[in-house]
Amino acid sequence: MVFILKPNVEKEKIEKFIADWEQKGFSTIYSEGTEHTAVCLIGNTAEVDLDHAVQTSEIIDFGKRITEQYKAVNRTVHEYGTIINVSSVSIGEGFFTVMSGPCSVESEEQILEIARSVKKSGAKILRGGAFKPRTSPYAFQGTQAQGLEMLRIAKQETGLPIVSEIMNQTQVDLFEDVDIIQIGARNMQNFDLLKAAGKLKKPVLLKRGLANTIEELLMSAEYIVSGGNSQVILCERGIRTFETMTRNTLDLSAVALLKQKTHLPVIVDPSHAAGIRSLVPPLSKAALAVGADGLMIEAHNNPAKALCDGAQSLDLEQFQSLMDELKKRVAMENKVL
Amino acid sequence: MVFILKPNVEKEKIEKFIADWEQKGFSTIYSEGTEHTAVCLIGNTAEVDLDHAVQTSEIIDFGKRITEQYKAVNRTVHEYGTIINVSSVSIGEGFFTVMSGPCSVESEEQILEIARSVKKSGAKILRGGAFKPRTSPYAFQGTQAQGLEMLRIAKQETGLPIVSEIMNQTQVDLFEDVDIIQIGARNMQNFDLLKAAGKLKKPVLLKRGLANTIEELLMSAEYIVSGGNSQVILCERGIRTFETMTRNTLDLSAVALLKQKTHLPVIVDPSHAAGIRSLVPPLSKAALAVGADGLMIEAHNNPAKALCDGAQSLDLEQFQSLMDELKKRVAMENKVL
Amino acid sequence: MVFILKPNVEKEKIEKFIADWEQKGFSTIYSEGTEHTAVCLIGNTAEVDLDHAVQTSEIIDFGKRITEQYKAVNRTVHEYGTIINVSSVSIGEGFFTVMSGPCSVESEEQILEIARSVKKSGAKILRGGAFKPRTSPYAFQGTQAQGLEMLRIAKQETGLPIVSEIMNQTQVDLFEDVDIIQIGARNMQNFDLLKAAGKLKKPVLLKRGLANTIEELLMSAEYIVSGGNSQVILCERGIRTFETMTRNTLDLSAVALLKQKTHLPVIVDPSHAAGIRSLVPPLSKAALAVGADGLMIEAHNNPAKALCDGAQSLDLEQFQSLMDELKKRVAMENKVL
Amino acid sequence: MVFILKPNVEKEKIEKFIADWEQKGFSTIYSEGTEHTAVCLIGNTAEVDLDHAVQTSEIIDFGKRITEQYKAVNRTVHEYGTIINVSSVSIGEGFFTVMSGPCSVESEEQILEIARSVKKSGAKILRGGAFKPRTSPYAFQGTQAQGLEMLRIAKQETGLPIVSEIMNQTQVDLFEDVDIIQIGARNMQNFDLLKAAGKLKKPVLLKRGLANTIEELLMSAEYIVSGGNSQVILCERGIRTFETMTRNTLDLSAVALLKQKTHLPVIVDPSHAAGIRSLVPPLSKAALAVGADGLMIEAHNNPAKALCDGAQSLDLEQFQSLMDELKKRVAMENKVL
Repeated sequence: MVFILKPNVEKEKIEKFIADWEQKGFSTIYSEGTEHTAVCLIGNTAEVDLDHAVQTSEIIDFGKRITEQYKAVNRTVHEYGTIINVSSVSIGEGFFTVMSGPCSVESEEQILEIARSVKKSGAKILRGGAFKPRTSPYAFQGTQAQGLEMLRIAKQETGLPIVSEIMNQTQVDLFEDVDIIQIGARNMQNFDLLKAAGKLKKPVLLKRGLANTIEELLMSAEYIVSGGNSQVILCERGIRTFETMTRNTLDLSAVALLKQKTHLPVIVDPSHAAGIRSLVPPLSKAALAVGADGLMIEAHNNPAKALCDGAQSLDLEQFQSLMDELKKRVAMENKVL
Repeated sequence: MVFILKPNVEKEKIEKFIADWEQKGFSTIYSEGTEHTAVCLIGNTAEVDLDHAVQTSEIIDFGKRITEQYKAVNRTVHEYGTIINVSSVSIGEGFFTVMSGPCSVESEEQILEIARSVKKSGAKILRGGAFKPRTSPYAFQGTQAQGLEMLRIAKQETGLPIVSEIMNQTQVDLFEDVDIIQIGARNMQNFDLLKAAGKLKKPVLLKRGLANTIEELLMSAEYIVSGGNSQVILCERGIRTFETMTRNTLDLSAVALLKQKTHLPVIVDPSHAAGIRSLVPPLSKAALAVGADGLMIEAHNNPAKALCDGAQSLDLEQFQSLMDELKKRVAMENKVL
Repeated sequence: MVFILKPNVEKEKIEKFIADWEQKGFSTIYSEGTEHTAVCLIGNTAEVDLDHAVQTSEIIDFGKRITEQYKAVNRTVHEYGTIINVSSVSIGEGFFTVMSGPCSVESEEQILEIARSVKKSGAKILRGGAFKPRTSPYAFQGTQAQGLEMLRIAKQETGLPIVSEIMNQTQVDLFEDVDIIQIGARNMQNFDLLKAAGKLKKPVLLKRGLANTIEELLMSAEYIVSGGNSQVILCERGIRTFETMTRNTLDLSAVALLKQKTHLPVIVDPSHAAGIRSLVPPLSKAALAVGADGLMIEAHNNPAKALCDGAQSLDLEQFQSLMDELKKRVAMENKVL
Repeated sequence: MVFILKPNVEKEKIEKFIADWEQKGFSTIYSEGTEHTAVCLIGNTAEVDLDHAVQTSEIIDFGKRITEQYKAVNRTVHEYGTIINVSSVSIGEGFFTVMSGPCSVESEEQILEIARSVKKSGAKILRGGAFKPRTSPYAFQGTQAQGLEMLRIAKQETGLPIVSEIMNQTQVDLFEDVDIIQIGARNMQNFDLLKAAGKLKKPVLLKRGLANTIEELLMSAEYIVSGGNSQVILCERGIRTFETMTRNTLDLSAVALLKQKTHLPVIVDPSHAAGIRSLVPPLSKAALAVGADGLMIEAHNNPAKALCDGAQSLDLEQFQSLMDELKKRVAMENKVL
């Protein structure tokens, strides 16, 4: 971390500034120029609040972090990408893992039919929403605990590990049989939930918030990993922009960039991003090509009757076709589906 | 709610469609044209999920809500604006209520000094953060439960009601002595927290999320009010846009529009929106002029040493000057400071 | 186009409303319901200004366009995608055409070296900026007319058709030897330039504006095509969002959607979108996978010394590697590079 | 301008780097530290392209501009705000100048009636669109040259100076009788038009683009002022965000910030920003309170029949009422209406 000081600061103030930092355990380097003077901080600067440091000092003109603020999730600490294993399924470097299932778990029959079909098509993990975050208090809120039980049955029947969204930290026990805990976009900066996730012994799927930067996503992951749980899967699912023809704008550049910045696996959810069924296959192929480690895709046995987000769900045949397309392409990307 | 049907739908399908809705308790109106056919729904359509209805029907071309989805918070149900009373302080129509205090409660001395000063300047409510939502796990997380205790002491000493941000629904008991519960921008769509807030017997200050629409803010308020707590104060605090010279973009049009759409009080937080001290006074005056019912302003006895957000805090003299400016202007807006 | 009327409008007003439209040459359909009344308009409604119609009528509640406003560029008028031929190069359905070259034409040697190299690597068209739109009046403004002459020489030497950006309609004659006229992002809604482009007898490459919707892009293309020039190539080059880690956010969903909505070729410029060299290869592969008809990629013989946008330019070897990667993949997409 | 160099750069490279800058006419200051080394540049750094400098050097880690890039428009060069005089009307520090008129000039009768009325209400300048930038080629494009003639007549009759939007630099002669040349939001980065505006001898009203930053607006103004025309009026008219309930998001923080950063007058156009008539009065009052130097407001003798943007136009009585409200408030802001 380097601070460029304001011009013409009295020497005493600079000395006090340096002494203050050294007292906090940092080494400093003092570099005086004719016009500007720089003070460099050496030590665990990730724990320094840069904005705070600049704002509370009357002698700093500006500061810059030389090392990135995310440490535990930084690619530099783990050159080879992390691989997360769930039962016999691997997620990360070298794999392209497809999670699929309905937006909302509706009934045992529904989830079983979908689970069997997507498994046959090549999905490795079953997704299904039990608790649904809805903008309106009058909208369908999910099948809740019953939904989780239906997912458990589908897992038992098919052997597919399951992923489902948690709403808050008091639900952790309820999610005991869920293999991957999903933290949704609206909860990406629910810091108490992130802290609780840091204490879990199972993988967490962390979705990027609709208006959160790539750096904020990494910092939220850092909450979980620095809390003790290194099994974090990042998920790009579209950001909110001025464009209204698609529901959100899928940010595939973020995927490519995340793969350079962090060792964590990064998957893509094209269904929620686009909100339009016909865009799911091309965006899925693009996600593979851009370097994603997998996909989360909504599939439904009867999209027209889905209780939630039917317009973006593939039917089971469409999902099969998409998987066929992906199978042809994974080898080209040195991945295993 | 009106549905325009696709062209050339078979009569049987339309009849079934109508029967389905009537079975759910709605009246319908059928209106056939040469090119298009419309079906209107009458009844409590706020409880209908429009997107879902359109997506799951194969015969609807598009649908439109004639009445707005927010009912309990709608201006039409309560022509005169709601006034919320906290001890002897009123918030809403005819008042301009200023809440002030530090971003973060740091010590008993600090909060007492600030509380006494802002009270003298005319603030009616004391704000102070005890639990702080921070992007980085390494940043200062607030003085937490101790901070709440310091706030309680300041309230006792000065008689000012207090407002502080809650992080999740498990903290409700901790906030017993807090007069107004703040739900922060990042929690605006934490639906379980909103549901818990609906059961409180005290006012809730609901901040607009950084990327949430005006309608989503109203729907989140609807969660609380429809849950049983009608004491909701809305707060505009800036939205996330491409502009980086200000931290966020304060959306004062939203304030003017909210005052037309809902009967709830609407206040403005210019400190967080701008992130720059010198913009707080002009934006405060603009908020009054645009029709806001009050302000939430950060003030600190020593902004340069603030543990959080010092760059946007006014010092106590600057706050006094701003209050003097506002006092001159409130009468013009038919309000009482 | 369908108008839903306000409730309780007097019959005379409705009759006058209908008569007015019929006088303008439209057929109408009147459809009365108990709650709502609809009037449908039949005829060339693309020429109707919907907002204006709604705003200037006191009896319309809302209106909706059933057919899209863009007609000439609509996929429905030309089921098979348009193919644009420039010399022996084809752009559109079945092809994947790569345009490459420096951001800015700097010297004859530079452009010749780059042209020969990218041609060898498989680029079919040479790009090069002569007139450069720059945010600052103090920044390098391009080699201008000399730059165009250098491009002409490179075209003569290599046989590659050339594409370069025009700044305004007075430059049309200057661009006589330029094979494809580029209209830049900042000029996407320079309507006089679009009208001039409609009179050209050569292809126009129209870039999406940084804050323009997909529909606005199509409407700008409609200006050119309805003006008489059907040779329009659309180009997605990133939109402006809150994310700052990439220069812009490349909107690949827009590409997939555009391919469904219009018969015009759609290419992608990953260099300007990302602003970071290392993101260009993954985004290029993603663009191919999502259905784009080609790419525009910045390549430079010495990116470190480029007079403009060096950080995003590939060097000639990197470009060669990328083309090798693309060659392996085009067949999979049923395209010819 | 300060450059922080990468660690461990060889001394020869640094010497060459410094020599290169000195050869270009800059003085440099070399400041070596243990960890980092800084090189400061002294001279006319506004003409240095910072990004280019960083990108094309292999030894720079990062650079920062100490002085802002906009020089001629910078507040520091002209401590007291610029006042622009048009006939007997003053715009700038100490004044609050209201420009009003219809979105589109439709007929001589219309513009005369409106001009007389808004003059009586207190408007000092008459606005009216003759050439209209429209998204669709099928929408009404304005009364064009005839519209300018009608404006000229209205000016002659009422004595009000007129402002109207130019579309491109070839129209300069056509606009001879127009007192203030408006450059619209879509042309804010039409650099050739800005260069032409720099040669005019009359005031230019420069509107902020829908997706342009405050800094880009200042740089576009810098094009005009550095080109020789110091009479530039800036206009905030709303930016494009994710919010759709208002047409654009009026950025009043930008107005407060611009007043600090530049000496140029800054006015606000609430009509286009909001797109909703009922929001114009509160936003106008807020604009005055936030420090704007004036307003541009659409008023129409018959908004329901306006050929363009009727929904946002005040009728003449509403405009009168708004002016009455503003008159009460200008003294409070130490301004003259």
